[in-house]
Amino acid sequence: MNTVHQVPDLSRLSSRIPAAPSIGSTTVTKPDHIHLSFGFAADSLFPLEALEQSAQQAIRQDGARALQYSGAPGPAYILDWIQSRAASYGIDAETAQILVTNGATQGIALAAQLLLEPGDEVWVEAPTFFSALQAFRLCGASIRAFPIDGEGVQVDKLEEALIAAVHEGRPVPKLFYTMPVYHNPGGVTLSLSRRRQLADLARRYNFYIVEDDAYAELNFTGETFISLYELAPERTIYLNTFSKIIAPGIRLGWMIAHPLLVSRLRILMLGSSTAVFTQEIVAHLLKQLDFEQHRAQLIRHYWRQRDIMVTAIRSELGDEVSFELPEGGFFLWLTFPDQVNTAEMQYIAERHGVSYVAGSHFYHDDSGHNHLRLCFSYCTADRLTEGISRLAAAYREYREEHLHQGVDSYSQH
Amino acid sequence: MNTVHQVPDLSRLSSRIPAAPSIGSTTVTKPDHIHLSFGFAADSLFPLEALEQSAQQAIRQDGARALQYSGAPGPAYILDWIQSRAASYGIDAETAQILVTNGATQGIALAAQLLLEPGDEVWVEAPTFFSALQAFRLCGASIRAFPIDGEGVQVDKLEEALIAAVHEGRPVPKLFYTMPVYHNPGGVTLSLSRRRQLADLARRYNFYIVEDDAYAELNFTGETFISLYELAPERTIYLNTFSKIIAPGIRLGWMIAHPLLVSRLRILMLGSSTAVFTQEIVAHLLKQLDFEQHRAQLIRHYWRQRDIMVTAIRSELGDEVSFELPEGGFFLWLTFPDQVNTAEMQYIAERHGVSYVAGSHFYHDDSGHNHLRLCFSYCTADRLTEGISRLAAAYREYREEHLHQGVDSYSQH
Repeated sequence: MNTVHQVPDLSRLSSRIPAAPSIGSTTVTKPDHIHLSFGFAADSLFPLEALEQSAQQAIRQDGARALQYSGAPGPAYILDWIQSRAASYGIDAETAQILVTNGATQGIALAAQLLLEPGDEVWVEAPTFFSALQAFRLCGASIRAFPIDGEGVQVDKLEEALIAAVHEGRPVPKLFYTMPVYHNPGGVTLSLSRRRQLADLARRYNFYIVEDDAYAELNFTGETFISLYELAPERTIYLNTFSKIIAPGIRLGWMIAHPLLVSRLRILMLGSSTAVFTQEIVAHLLKQLDFEQHRAQLIRHYWRQRDIMVTAIRSELGDEVSFELPEGGFFLWLTFPDQVNTAEMQYIAERHGVSYVAGSHFYHDDSGHNHLRLCFSYCTADRLTEGISRLAAAYREYREEHLHQGVDSYSQH
Repeated sequence: MNTVHQVPDLSRLSSRIPAAPSIGSTTVTKPDHIHLSFGFAADSLFPLEALEQSAQQAIRQDGARALQYSGAPGPAYILDWIQSRAASYGIDAETAQILVTNGATQGIALAAQLLLEPGDEVWVEAPTFFSALQAFRLCGASIRAFPIDGEGVQVDKLEEALIAAVHEGRPVPKLFYTMPVYHNPGGVTLSLSRRRQLADLARRYNFYIVEDDAYAELNFTGETFISLYELAPERTIYLNTFSKIIAPGIRLGWMIAHPLLVSRLRILMLGSSTAVFTQEIVAHLLKQLDFEQHRAQLIRHYWRQRDIMVTAIRSELGDEVSFELPEGGFFLWLTFPDQVNTAEMQYIAERHGVSYVAGSHFYHDDSGHNHLRLCFSYCTADRLTEGISRLAAAYREYREEHLHQGVDSYSQH
């Protein structure tokens, strides 16, 4: 016991620390590399001028408050804006039910901390958002996943599992995490009948729904959806974010929940309260921005980007891949033939100058080997097309190297 | 099981959720009320003009990057600044060992997540920073506390407890949390011999030190101290913050640790990365601010504030209270006669128009009933003096109501 260690004793670390990042390599820095992996916003649409003015106003007019600590809920204007925006899509909430968070991802972590103790069950969609998996793992949760299809998560399978758990005396989940609209990575949207069924199950089987609505504002078709919060307000913790509609780098999102939950979430947040500085800046921004016009511009842009990527995929990869056509959001989720392992293919893709996120990162059990996620939001149109072309070339090379059967449509090259 | 609940089922929440905020009521909003409770910075010293310029530059020059997601370590300039600042007080670290966090409090939470599993031992100082207690409780840690005196925590008692634990086959702590310089709330500084002893114990008994250095830059006497990190770099997770030297509302701090720990902390942070936006602004600010001059101004101000508060206490409360004279930081820690319960007295104090934080908030076991924390950093000089006068009046009233023996120096009023 008297030895002096010159390196830290890693055996003393929590066994829950992930051994590797939850997402694949995005560290390629070659300027020509095409990052279809990054789930980034289009930086050409950041409201830079308005932000610059807002920062000036926040510092000049509210400097002392904007730069101080705050245990308070944040600037009234930002809460009012969120309240009226939520009302516009059917969510009826008092401002006291709204918590401004450090992005929607902090919302997931807070919901997990609010509910979970080690060993508790968390049920999710397969695939699901990797940062959510990480948040649940850090709480020591036992994770189980249910497949999605074109109408979102298969709630029937969830119900079967709940019935079986009760029948066998096993625990039901504390929470079900879902991204019902423009799913990351699946791109799909939960159907109304499944929403009703899920809300009903939450009540009958006594679990909470964590509803991650991060992409809901980017609805290309203009369609809006009844939120799970609306269907079961006492059972749902609703999350949203300014990341997709203003800019990710400001790290602001929000939660809406029952006041009895919010009061506890507020206590949980005391040590990690959201920066007042950026809240004041965004409050000023929202006052001067024509949000509907800004949103329309975002939608037009991302819709066009999706179409460009889809066209390129159909032309370059044809029948080799299948996907659901997302009607909003940032992502396309490709399914390759079952023999394909996208984690293995990744090295070839990087040599070809293109990155994606391998499917296994979206599964708690590292399954999903033949899927991958592409992001159409970030790159310019030219680079999207070129990126898919590189991906197709990488796939052809991978096929020749790894798949010795079933040579078909690409055998001619 | 078929009942529809209209309120959430609180029995499903984690049992670790605190029932009440970790600090006392600071919700009094009467304009004349004097908040000696708030551990706030002096807003008259926020570098507002420089910040306004920095925000403009960050948005104009680096807008696309500043507003995007980032898995990257943050702007190089901020890392370089932290590195050279740390070197100036004896800490030798590569920039790869530096993590910019959402304030030092996120640093505490991350260190706790890195190390702790439910049931693990965490040992702390008594009193200690309440947000640290909350972070450790949320990880399900078992907390034990060791008293401080004028030279900081009594490391001999810590050693006795370690010896006893090993002897009795009980677990030693995973981490010891300390604020060695200008302790919050105690105001004291750990002596050099105790630092050496603590670093030695960490090595011998295989625990990590979490060294919270939040107030170290505000050293009124100019004295600097050998950090625990310097004494045991492989055993120490070092925390610091821009909250006291720039402004709390920007929520930026940093951690320094061994690369093997930093790589894991970086993975933990992926879901809650620090806002690039504010990092870019602060990077620009640090480029143009004469930091030594700014710091000298802060020190002059806080030093004068401390003297004003101390003079008022000696004049108004005289022998009724004792305290160590802090040579830096924000806080005075008053000890009243043992019969005094500062949590009970708080209601009277609020009626008199003054707030403090009752001592029990700084103890994991709610002891410390006859202490309270006063903050001299935030209020203006007049209000500090008036605040202490109100506190003394509240104490006299409390004594008359609650303490029926030992009437002495205040019996004449």
